[in-house]
Amino acid sequence: MPHIALDENLPGITGLFAYRPETAAPLGQLAEVLLRGPSSLSVGERELIGAVVSRGNDCTFCSRSHAAVAAEALEGGMPVVEAAWKDVDGTPVSAKVRALLHVALAVRESGKSVGEDLIETARAEGATDVEIHDTVLIAAAFCMFNRYVDGLATLAADDQDAYREVGVHLLANGYTSL
Amino acid sequence: MPHIALDENLPGITGLFAYRPETAAPLGQLAEVLLRGPSSLSVGERELIGAVVSRGNDCTFCSRSHAAVAAEALEGGMPVVEAAWKDVDGTPVSAKVRALLHVALAVRESGKSVGEDLIETARAEGATDVEIHDTVLIAAAFCMFNRYVDGLATLAADDQDAYREVGVHLLANGYTSL
Repeated sequence: MPHIALDENLPGITGLFAYRPETAAPLGQLAEVLLRGPSSLSVGERELIGAVVSRGNDCTFCSRSHAAVAAEALEGGMPVVEAAWKDVDGTPVSAKVRALLHVALAVRESGKSVGEDLIETARAEGATDVEIHDTVLIAAAFCMFNRYVDGLATLAADDQDAYREVGVHLLANGYTSL
Repeated sequence: MPHIALDENLPGITGLFAYRPETAAPLGQLAEVLLRGPSSLSVGERELIGAVVSRGNDCTFCSRSHAAVAAEALEGGMPVVEAAWKDVDGTPVSAKVRALLHVALAVRESGKSVGEDLIETARAEGATDVEIHDTVLIAAAFCMFNRYVDGLATLAADDQDAYREVGVHLLANGYTSL
């Protein structure tokens, strides 16, 4: 049961957005800019970063919903997400994205865990400053979203199939539609 | 040295805001709503939550700058912040705010660390649903800001006096002024 009185028909962050529209507005805009705005990283690659960080933080709602969007957006679908959840190095994405996923997982631990070696590897695989910046901020933002969703004990189904429709909707309409 | 090319005259998050105005806009708005918007928690109490979470995350720039704002806003000044950094239970703020600081420190660890007992204690001390919501989101947001600032290895002085001017400015002008 959630720690505060939320609409029981709205799971995860959707209930929180309905509860507090004042904070929902900038949070939705942040997700929109980071995950849908102009970028040399594809939508699927950025959603994959979010799904991997959320899985690391053991956040059911965020990991399953962003996995659903990534699965819709990435050519290889859900198996790519599942591979990344298991082992970043064995994930069928570019070497650059694998290096950025390692940066994201370091951010998940702590900002101070992002060593120069991880940055150098990403750069050697072709990552630009903006891609490194956005990866760090996407990972950091999911550390916020995950704590927001679980810190208020919101409800979430733990069945990937239950999120497919959400994934299709978010891919088509983005985060300011929530 | 920062991991990406930032203006060396702009420490901490200020260099990141200048580097990427697209993400600075919603981040500034989020901080403004959470820390300056209408609330039954005072500005000083909310800044104290941010300073305590940032200290827990060992983020020099965020802990010192928000300590500076809290010190300007709270009647007891910097000694209150220093007490909270050392031991929440010995901090000269209301029992409600002490209980909310415990909630915030649990969020810092993980969303799932926020047990029903912490919420019940806060509620027994008079915390409302909105105050619990905002405390969780402030703590979660600082887990993002801390990782953003340190994940890109931004520069920060480790001298509280160096932040006094920033504290005065932020208290007077808020976060959309950055």
